[in-house]
Amino acid sequence: MSRKIFIDASLGRKTPYTPIWLMRQAGRYLSEYMEVRNRAGSFLDLCHSPELSAEVTLQPVDILGVDAAILFSDILVVPNEMGMELEFIKGVGPKFPKPLTSDRDLENLDMSASEKLGYVYKTIEIVRNRLADDKALIGFSGSPWTLATYMIEGQGSKTYARIKKILYSDPAYLHALLEKLTIVITQYLEKQILSGVDAVQIFDSWASALEKETFFEFSWRYMVKISESLKEKYPNIPIILFPKGVGSYLDGIYGNFDVFGVDWGTPIELAKEKLGDRYILQGNLEPTRLYSKEAIKSGVTHIIETMQNRRHIFNLGHGMLPDLDRENAKYLVNLVREMSSRY
Amino acid sequence: MSRKIFIDASLGRKTPYTPIWLMRQAGRYLSEYMEVRNRAGSFLDLCHSPELSAEVTLQPVDILGVDAAILFSDILVVPNEMGMELEFIKGVGPKFPKPLTSDRDLENLDMSASEKLGYVYKTIEIVRNRLADDKALIGFSGSPWTLATYMIEGQGSKTYARIKKILYSDPAYLHALLEKLTIVITQYLEKQILSGVDAVQIFDSWASALEKETFFEFSWRYMVKISESLKEKYPNIPIILFPKGVGSYLDGIYGNFDVFGVDWGTPIELAKEKLGDRYILQGNLEPTRLYSKEAIKSGVTHIIETMQNRRHIFNLGHGMLPDLDRENAKYLVNLVREMSSRY
Repeated sequence: MSRKIFIDASLGRKTPYTPIWLMRQAGRYLSEYMEVRNRAGSFLDLCHSPELSAEVTLQPVDILGVDAAILFSDILVVPNEMGMELEFIKGVGPKFPKPLTSDRDLENLDMSASEKLGYVYKTIEIVRNRLADDKALIGFSGSPWTLATYMIEGQGSKTYARIKKILYSDPAYLHALLEKLTIVITQYLEKQILSGVDAVQIFDSWASALEKETFFEFSWRYMVKISESLKEKYPNIPIILFPKGVGSYLDGIYGNFDVFGVDWGTPIELAKEKLGDRYILQGNLEPTRLYSKEAIKSGVTHIIETMQNRRHIFNLGHGMLPDLDRENAKYLVNLVREMSSRY
Repeated sequence: MSRKIFIDASLGRKTPYTPIWLMRQAGRYLSEYMEVRNRAGSFLDLCHSPELSAEVTLQPVDILGVDAAILFSDILVVPNEMGMELEFIKGVGPKFPKPLTSDRDLENLDMSASEKLGYVYKTIEIVRNRLADDKALIGFSGSPWTLATYMIEGQGSKTYARIKKILYSDPAYLHALLEKLTIVITQYLEKQILSGVDAVQIFDSWASALEKETFFEFSWRYMVKISESLKEKYPNIPIILFPKGVGSYLDGIYGNFDVFGVDWGTPIELAKEKLGDRYILQGNLEPTRLYSKEAIKSGVTHIIETMQNRRHIFNLGHGMLPDLDRENAKYLVNLVREMSSRY
């Protein structure tokens, strides 16, 4: 048993209670985060500052008492360091003003990007030094598919028209891009591991943009490829894969990784039935339940009674929202600890 | 056997080929639609004109040769006639500038709304007169949950923060609204039936905003309630329920209705396994496959081989997109007819 309950749970060891962390736990719902965010200048300035990124990474551990910190950064720093200009526009979100269109654009992508992300590795080193021994630090990356979608669409999309056109009319182009991203992301996560993270999570936020067959061909296989490269070299580093919105596709989930992230649209009992024997499950409280203590209590009860503090890491089924109440988040953390420790 | 293949298929009778229609088949991808749309003035003017609404309702039957027309209208005419001011803003979409907030707002809703929707019933009468005898006419409504979401959020939402707060902190308020909508929608669909539609579909476009337990409590039960009231009076009118994005919740689907609409995120073989014996399935080609003939062909092959022209109505798994190619839509219609007729 390690001193880090999160790591023990991720590797399938019995723990005294179910560890908990919250996706987007370092975020706008915390006034302490907003203070640092405003001090930093732009959002990208915050990502580029190891000192300030470390500060916001640590805030939720101190404030909420969660069992793991997750590196503060943004998934889009990777395409940015691959040479794509990136803007964060207030009220609109991130934007690549020059999305990928040509073969030339693909060739011009900088494959040494992982070497240019030193500010991320520095953040990890600072957090590592300051984080209590019993708390874990999670590194992360976007998945190849999710990053490719941003790089081709240029920004968030409702219909994914540009990338879907390419997917169906020129799949070789898309596969070439996904291969490149797979290489860069593998190097990026390896460097995060060497800098001191205890585990890594790959976020496939736009998995649900794909139907079953195309999800496995254009997203999942690349996530598994990254995971298997890392597991070969670092078998004791837990790997969490989180493809959001694929509850109908669980029959096809396979591969060498440790933890499957369950979104809130996938009933936890369904995930347990389909995947619970093979993977540790992470999730999956509906985030808006944090609007009400009663809704937290009934949601937590259902999840804890289903998982019974076995092969489970508690989390939300999606990220924290800016208008959620920090006191309710604290209540959640304490409730999970208390209820799960009975098993 | 009726002359309308769509009706036969909806009621589970064997048909010579699988009927097909496309959600949002009367839409911006047709230049003929855009011509009428521009002639009408505003989008709401188009909805209010029976003559022009009838014209666009009939266009896809003439142009694509689909087996059913679906009434052209908008789901938001119902809350609009319940007294809520409605705007359609270019590039933003529909908006209720004064969303529901108070008990007074709820009391003020006009429960005689179905009597004020005469322009819809008139459209149905005109279409009925002009439509070929072997083509069906489908009426529709939004579901109580989907309409309630617009009425409380005021407009489309990413996080559904307002309605989720009410759902978790004041569920009685939400249930009172859903009860009112259930009454009005039942009356509205009954008047559509009396005006001449052959079948009705209830669109629950925002079903996926709800986790499993809340979906059944706040959305599905009201859809079933409407369906069961109608089936009691009009047992030969097929009822199609289309809750979008609930592929993980199929184990809980029950009730007296005829056709279950399968979105493209739900694998058709999963829907067949879970629901195929009890309901006719409608769907579920991924709409962006219409960007490429090859993608249409592989998608159609998979669906037709799975369903084998039994208990199936072909459709997209979501609506037509404005930039899809009408020639590819024609190709789809012909391909489905040709391939399914082999069974």
